[in-house]
Amino acid sequence: MDNLWAIGIDLGGTKIEGALVGSDGSLQHQISYPTKAASGAEAVIQQILSLISEIKQKSTEPICGVGIGIAGQIEGQVVRFAPNLNWHDIPLVEKLAPFVKAPIYLDNDVQMTTRGEKKFGAGQDCSNFICLNLGTGIGGGIVMNDSLVAGSSHTAGEFGHLTVLLNGPLCTCGNRGCLEALSSGWAIAKRAREELLDLSKDSPLFKLSQGQKENISAALVFQAAAQKDPRALIIVQNAVDALIAGLVSIINGWNPQRIILGGGLLKGYLQFLPEIKKGIYQRALPAACTALEVLTSTCQGNASLLGAAVLVFESIGDKKC
Amino acid sequence: MDNLWAIGIDLGGTKIEGALVGSDGSLQHQISYPTKAASGAEAVIQQILSLISEIKQKSTEPICGVGIGIAGQIEGQVVRFAPNLNWHDIPLVEKLAPFVKAPIYLDNDVQMTTRGEKKFGAGQDCSNFICLNLGTGIGGGIVMNDSLVAGSSHTAGEFGHLTVLLNGPLCTCGNRGCLEALSSGWAIAKRAREELLDLSKDSPLFKLSQGQKENISAALVFQAAAQKDPRALIIVQNAVDALIAGLVSIINGWNPQRIILGGGLLKGYLQFLPEIKKGIYQRALPAACTALEVLTSTCQGNASLLGAAVLVFESIGDKKC
Repeated sequence: MDNLWAIGIDLGGTKIEGALVGSDGSLQHQISYPTKAASGAEAVIQQILSLISEIKQKSTEPICGVGIGIAGQIEGQVVRFAPNLNWHDIPLVEKLAPFVKAPIYLDNDVQMTTRGEKKFGAGQDCSNFICLNLGTGIGGGIVMNDSLVAGSSHTAGEFGHLTVLLNGPLCTCGNRGCLEALSSGWAIAKRAREELLDLSKDSPLFKLSQGQKENISAALVFQAAAQKDPRALIIVQNAVDALIAGLVSIINGWNPQRIILGGGLLKGYLQFLPEIKKGIYQRALPAACTALEVLTSTCQGNASLLGAAVLVFESIGDKKC
Repeated sequence: MDNLWAIGIDLGGTKIEGALVGSDGSLQHQISYPTKAASGAEAVIQQILSLISEIKQKSTEPICGVGIGIAGQIEGQVVRFAPNLNWHDIPLVEKLAPFVKAPIYLDNDVQMTTRGEKKFGAGQDCSNFICLNLGTGIGGGIVMNDSLVAGSSHTAGEFGHLTVLLNGPLCTCGNRGCLEALSSGWAIAKRAREELLDLSKDSPLFKLSQGQKENISAALVFQAAAQKDPRALIIVQNAVDALIAGLVSIINGWNPQRIILGGGLLKGYLQFLPEIKKGIYQRALPAACTALEVLTSTCQGNASLLGAAVLVFESIGDKKC
């Protein structure tokens, strides 16, 4: 069958990225801009239109549609809430449609990632798997019985808000002891910032951050831990312990065949992957682990872009572009 | 369409129950025996055969098949592990088939319960729901996208083993801080037994148990709590807090439209249901709660029996009995 083409877009609070994606999984004309989130929704919508037109100009192929993955809660053609963009109830398809001569499809970025992994990545030929995205926040996507699970209001897979430590640290969601409040990028950075004043000036964490709170990111804490910084090691060990607990909950509750780890923080966690796997197999129900594999994403950061195009191909079905 | 008939059986460690079930949800000739679990698998298999033959004798209708729900891990026609029966790898269908002139289908009892709720109970006309069974242990069943979710090795829904308190009390599964180790019947009874020596002899818990450890059950602890016993109230409050945390994890992770509570311990928890609902709505993600209803089973303890028959009807499809 001939290759079909769609534009896949990944809209985040920091950057907006797009590419021409073939139905064979090939990526062309990949472009990214810093998101003008602070300039308001209209400015970002203009950026989306520029991105689409730039990719269209470079392409000689007919385009079947545009898929857009957004970090937020999506309901049909409307972005209900996207905290990183500060968007509430933006009818994005309605806003874009007059300027785009192709159907437009929206979904949550992690749902797009899950579609990408299923079609082209580590979720291929697997009926039951979970994608866990470890980044500033923690989110996930679910495939069970070969189908994406969206839940009753399109929020299924909010694994960052599994309670793993009753009455534990406060989370951004208002609850306490969420996985995200212990193992996410923001939580790791927050813990390290709180400890900065107590650090010895010789310590890797102090040196790497130059003693400045605002220089501390989760990536830097992982870097300090790799240099055996004692405080960083404790912070990261606590994050790893909570992550194991969250993964055990996912395994016991969902019984996936694969867990596919991805996201910006995966690089930091990779040095602990043997420990994480060991912890999982020690603590999860043996019967839930018989078929289990713990993998990392094979889409090189492009799972969301790819998945956005997959949604286009699935939605248009056998129609011509 | 004419009513079809199947025998539904619920095999637990304490009792074995069966009935003739119509495809309209009607129940006839319901019988129950105490399970001879201590006498070994062959004795229990004889009980199943007696139950089937007793129901058959009472019935004038042709029987399409026999469905058996078992508290344990089922794989096809084999009971892999049923802790309450002390069964390992029992090929139950093979053992029964020579004596039963009808097809036999097995599944986990909570999966059967979930089928029963979907077809005849509180899960009717609902695409995404979770059954949570609160008993000696805690387990669950999952319907997403209108299908039962079994997972990769038929253990999905082991919600009793969601970690809700990292490094918390030891669970029977070997892990720590599982929901079951805090909120199940065995955990509540265990806590109360541990405190018995410290109790005042005037306290309701002491009086109800006559000061005997072996008289303490979770039901009795709930009864003492209803009589304002201070220790029982603390034990039950801790169990309620952990249950709320587990339910929040289920809601954030699965985003069900309904949670259907059932099981032998539900009666005890019912007095706390307003508090449980309030806690859920306070702590779960608001976007995950937009469509949520928390209900109790409407199958009067027969959901597993009904669901066992549903599995028969679904399996035989349009075939005549």
